Amino acid sequence: MPPTGPVITQQMHFSAPLPLKCGAALADYTLVYETHGTLNADRSNAVLVCHALNASHHVAGVDAQGAVGWWDNLIGPGKPLDTERFFVIGVNNPGSCFGSTGPMHVNPATGRVWGADFPVQTVEDWVDAQLRLIDRLGIAQLAAVVGGSLGGMQALAWTLRHPERVRHCVAVATAPNLSAQNIAFNEVARRAIVTDPDFHGGHFYAHGVVPKRGLRVARMIGHITYLSDDAMDLKFGRALRNAELAFSTQAIEFQIESYLRYQGDKFSEYFDANTYLLITRALDYFDPAAEHGGNLARAFEPARANRFLLVSFTTDWRFSPARSREIVKALVDNRIAVSYAEIAAPHGHDAFLLDDARYHGVMRAYFERLQA
Amino acid sequence: MPPTGPVITQQMHFSAPLPLKCGAALADYTLVYETHGTLNADRSNAVLVCHALNASHHVAGVDAQGAVGWWDNLIGPGKPLDTERFFVIGVNNPGSCFGSTGPMHVNPATGRVWGADFPVQTVEDWVDAQLRLIDRLGIAQLAAVVGGSLGGMQALAWTLRHPERVRHCVAVATAPNLSAQNIAFNEVARRAIVTDPDFHGGHFYAHGVVPKRGLRVARMIGHITYLSDDAMDLKFGRALRNAELAFSTQAIEFQIESYLRYQGDKFSEYFDANTYLLITRALDYFDPAAEHGGNLARAFEPARANRFLLVSFTTDWRFSPARSREIVKALVDNRIAVSYAEIAAPHGHDAFLLDDARYHGVMRAYFERLQA
Repeated sequence: MPPTGPVITQQMHFSAPLPLKCGAALADYTLVYETHGTLNADRSNAVLVCHALNASHHVAGVDAQGAVGWWDNLIGPGKPLDTERFFVIGVNNPGSCFGSTGPMHVNPATGRVWGADFPVQTVEDWVDAQLRLIDRLGIAQLAAVVGGSLGGMQALAWTLRHPERVRHCVAVATAPNLSAQNIAFNEVARRAIVTDPDFHGGHFYAHGVVPKRGLRVARMIGHITYLSDDAMDLKFGRALRNAELAFSTQAIEFQIESYLRYQGDKFSEYFDANTYLLITRALDYFDPAAEHGGNLARAFEPARANRFLLVSFTTDWRFSPARSREIVKALVDNRIAVSYAEIAAPHGHDAFLLDDARYHGVMRAYFERLQA
Repeated sequence: MPPTGPVITQQMHFSAPLPLKCGAALADYTLVYETHGTLNADRSNAVLVCHALNASHHVAGVDAQGAVGWWDNLIGPGKPLDTERFFVIGVNNPGSCFGSTGPMHVNPATGRVWGADFPVQTVEDWVDAQLRLIDRLGIAQLAAVVGGSLGGMQALAWTLRHPERVRHCVAVATAPNLSAQNIAFNEVARRAIVTDPDFHGGHFYAHGVVPKRGLRVARMIGHITYLSDDAMDLKFGRALRNAELAFSTQAIEFQIESYLRYQGDKFSEYFDANTYLLITRALDYFDPAAEHGGNLARAFEPARANRFLLVSFTTDWRFSPARSREIVKALVDNRIAVSYAEIAAPHGHDAFLLDDARYHGVMRAYFERLQA
């Protein structure tokens, strides 16, 4: 094993305009990424990892700031996605606030910070942006694209858009589109941000403020939906913060309140408000069946040469197993090879980020078979 | 049948201080209420109806403002709770914004509007306040106390606190306490209100403003939790507002967004922010088992002479059938007579307000048997 050092954050600039689904184009952009392991001689062992809402290119290891990658329990030497065998690429999407070109950067056309004028992104746009990175890295075909939640949507979109450029798709805790309830939660979070007086129509950078109130509320709502009801009851239940009730509408009475406020505060310190709007919108818009009259099986026709692993978690009420099964059915209808694991896990949507033995066992087995 | 006129809103003033669970007392207070039907000669046919978060004393008929009562499909001549047989009393709780003494009124001790200083209310306090109204109306024993959701908690509390003053308890879509997830949703709503710059620490009245942004977000969150995922998908799905996507993070793209914004706007026009904080806190605090080491059966021992009807709805994920079953079990453990109906209804928590044939059939049968 090579000596362990901090993961190096790399970046690549793309000067050709990227056409976007909204009709506009991103004139030029930079992608931040990191790699783990070694690309083999025939360049056949590359695995692209796509990120979800609050994540980045930093998928594994420890970076120069001491931060551990968000999927470090899954990716690394000897881990289920074994970097001694695979060349793993973590990439940060345009519109993000973790390094790639985003709303906090300067729009070269105007010389001013993009802010709310950053063009609206879709899952398909991100996949197209990622493809150029793969091109530049000289990889003709990825061994796999992997992602959870919104990352899973990107993994799926690769097989619909560039099926010849990827062999396997591993999509965890994802859905073929958002339900009305999913959109509703996103919309409340967006309204909390947009109506924060410090949002300034999305141009808060110029005012030297951040719409922290809105970001806090958005994050609190998110957290509730990432956890299962049961997990929340097990972890917090009705436990009080202090021995006695304060009988106050504003003080913290219950531990769950303390946890949520802490999560909200922390998030508001580092996450960009425009990025939150952009990423939740990309989630809302993703709907590959829409162009096929709602027929998901038709949508997956281009993916007939690909192979899939779908994983869902029993207590995930944000992207429930039923949503993964819709995808499985669409694949089976196309006679596409698909493995599907429905993991009995108590942690809700968050389970895809956690180290569950059965879940990681399935992932390890799939990647071992994939390599063989 | 008497000629139909507008329902008359009545009020009663209580000058004796009401001791509250928080340790303070409400020095004096006024309750707003309305009645339907006629109290019989032996005063044995009175039914008290308790309200939930966004409701009031106006339970049935049309008031002078032309508003239809919130449970008008259930209560009235010939309806399941038949006002030709029962004398139905709808009462508005202290702390509300629909007429009874609340945070928007003047604190007689200071000569200033209560605002955030209005004493924190509990379900038990409300029941004690309601008892005084029943006393004043000369009713020794209620035939029944009825309520849904938070109203159901009040109905339960009557049997724990004043079991000799009521014969039957009808508790619909309720729970023995809030889960961590329930509290979490309340807390996000409260944070949205409290961090709205127009909240002014709860003393916004003096500033001539209303924290509408916070109220809108609170109401949107509430609405999501009142509806089932399925009901939302059936009613809105992914239907777009316009023929084409606007590709905007702030415009309304989906019908569900339009619905939620409308509900939020409407609510922010009439609901009081301090009332919202007070009522969600009363929900959080309700936990009759807590004083008995978490043993709900022990908590219900005082209710051994009462009879119960519990109703839940299969798609209610806010107060799920499992929570009603906890109450049923505690009653059965005490050999207390309980009827329990679990209604297959698609509408989520909102089902308790809707006109479902099976639900109303159960209610009608119970009240008919109760009277016989």
